[in-house]
Amino acid sequence: MSAHSVPTALREFMAEREWRQFHTPENLAKSIVIEAAELLECFQWSAEGDQEDVTGELADVLTYCHLLAMHFGLDPDQIVLDKLEVTRAKYPVGLARGRSEKYDRLSD
Amino acid sequence: MSAHSVPTALREFMAEREWRQFHTPENLAKSIVIEAAELLECFQWSAEGDQEDVTGELADVLTYCHLLAMHFGLDPDQIVLDKLEVTRAKYPVGLARGRSEKYDRLSD
Amino acid sequence: MSAHSVPTALREFMAEREWRQFHTPENLAKSIVIEAAELLECFQWSAEGDQEDVTGELADVLTYCHLLAMHFGLDPDQIVLDKLEVTRAKYPVGLARGRSEKYDRLSD
Amino acid sequence: MSAHSVPTALREFMAEREWRQFHTPENLAKSIVIEAAELLECFQWSAEGDQEDVTGELADVLTYCHLLAMHFGLDPDQIVLDKLEVTRAKYPVGLARGRSEKYDRLSD
Repeated sequence: MSAHSVPTALREFMAEREWRQFHTPENLAKSIVIEAAELLECFQWSAEGDQEDVTGELADVLTYCHLLAMHFGLDPDQIVLDKLEVTRAKYPVGLARGRSEKYDRLSD
Repeated sequence: MSAHSVPTALREFMAEREWRQFHTPENLAKSIVIEAAELLECFQWSAEGDQEDVTGELADVLTYCHLLAMHFGLDPDQIVLDKLEVTRAKYPVGLARGRSEKYDRLSD
Repeated sequence: MSAHSVPTALREFMAEREWRQFHTPENLAKSIVIEAAELLECFQWSAEGDQEDVTGELADVLTYCHLLAMHFGLDPDQIVLDKLEVTRAKYPVGLARGRSEKYDRLSD
Repeated sequence: MSAHSVPTALREFMAEREWRQFHTPENLAKSIVIEAAELLECFQWSAEGDQEDVTGELADVLTYCHLLAMHFGLDPDQIVLDKLEVTRAKYPVGLARGRSEKYDRLSD
């Protein structure tokens, strides 16, 4: 287990390399989708992805997500929990149970 | 602050809606890139993204990242810290400082 | 100029390698976004992409677009022209001139 | 069949709306991946995508591909054929037949 929290570790890592200059929100958003596509590449031709590859690519997506959250002063866990409340209202259990349709296509 | 951790909250939310059946690793990987592209859409025509929109889309990316991590029994923070060590070796400070090139294009 | 049209050339190429078996619509859609992200990687840290890299990645995106179009028997040029008519109705010149907002955010 | 070629039709459409100002190569690359992810959304939870939805999203991807090709003065068909020759060399029939691995993982 690391002695550092993720934001502290990332901050130190980026500062040593003077990489913060590249980390505009726009560049980070591009980076997140680029890494997300590399993650998808683990599943390009098969439903089974190699777990080690998946782990590495998922870590890359999460790293850029942390950097973007840090830029805006957001707590990553808190925004997930906040968004869950929004989604809860859009997808009431009675309507959404066992269905994958988008909320605007759900009806009784 | 929520009384629930993110994994617990997500597990409960998905169980209520019987959505785990849709959450194969492949579908989650597709979902991560789909949400990442919606995040990028905040910056499609401008370097400045609306912070509220960015927050919501980033939360969606993170939600699917958590679900994929849960599927493989991974701790999201730990894999970020582990990957940072790999990146540290690929991008030594002396070589990478202030440069955005990929490691295989870095040289003295 | 090649003696072959693109669909004919692609069909022959894929047949020789017995790759059609991998080209389900879903796999092609994944491949398009994977290649599109590699194209975006040319612009990850800078607004200026290397033209040779851009050309190669754009060709990859287009290749998978052709394969998906072929799967559904679609003429790529015709669907672009058809969609342009739809977009024309959503974005009337008088409302959309010089503005990058989505149609549902346009108003006088 | 349209009286216009795709590039001519797109040029006229964009000129009327004064949208060329937004079409930097970087913005077009972002747009391609955004639209590619919307195409993938047709297959988010199922291997079967609705053909009408797929057609519309594929048209959007192709539209931005054409705009990027036009920016660099590239012929979309020619770059696909050129890239096919590169791929032909990387994936010789004898090695690649019936296999989906990347060229750097192919061996006898």
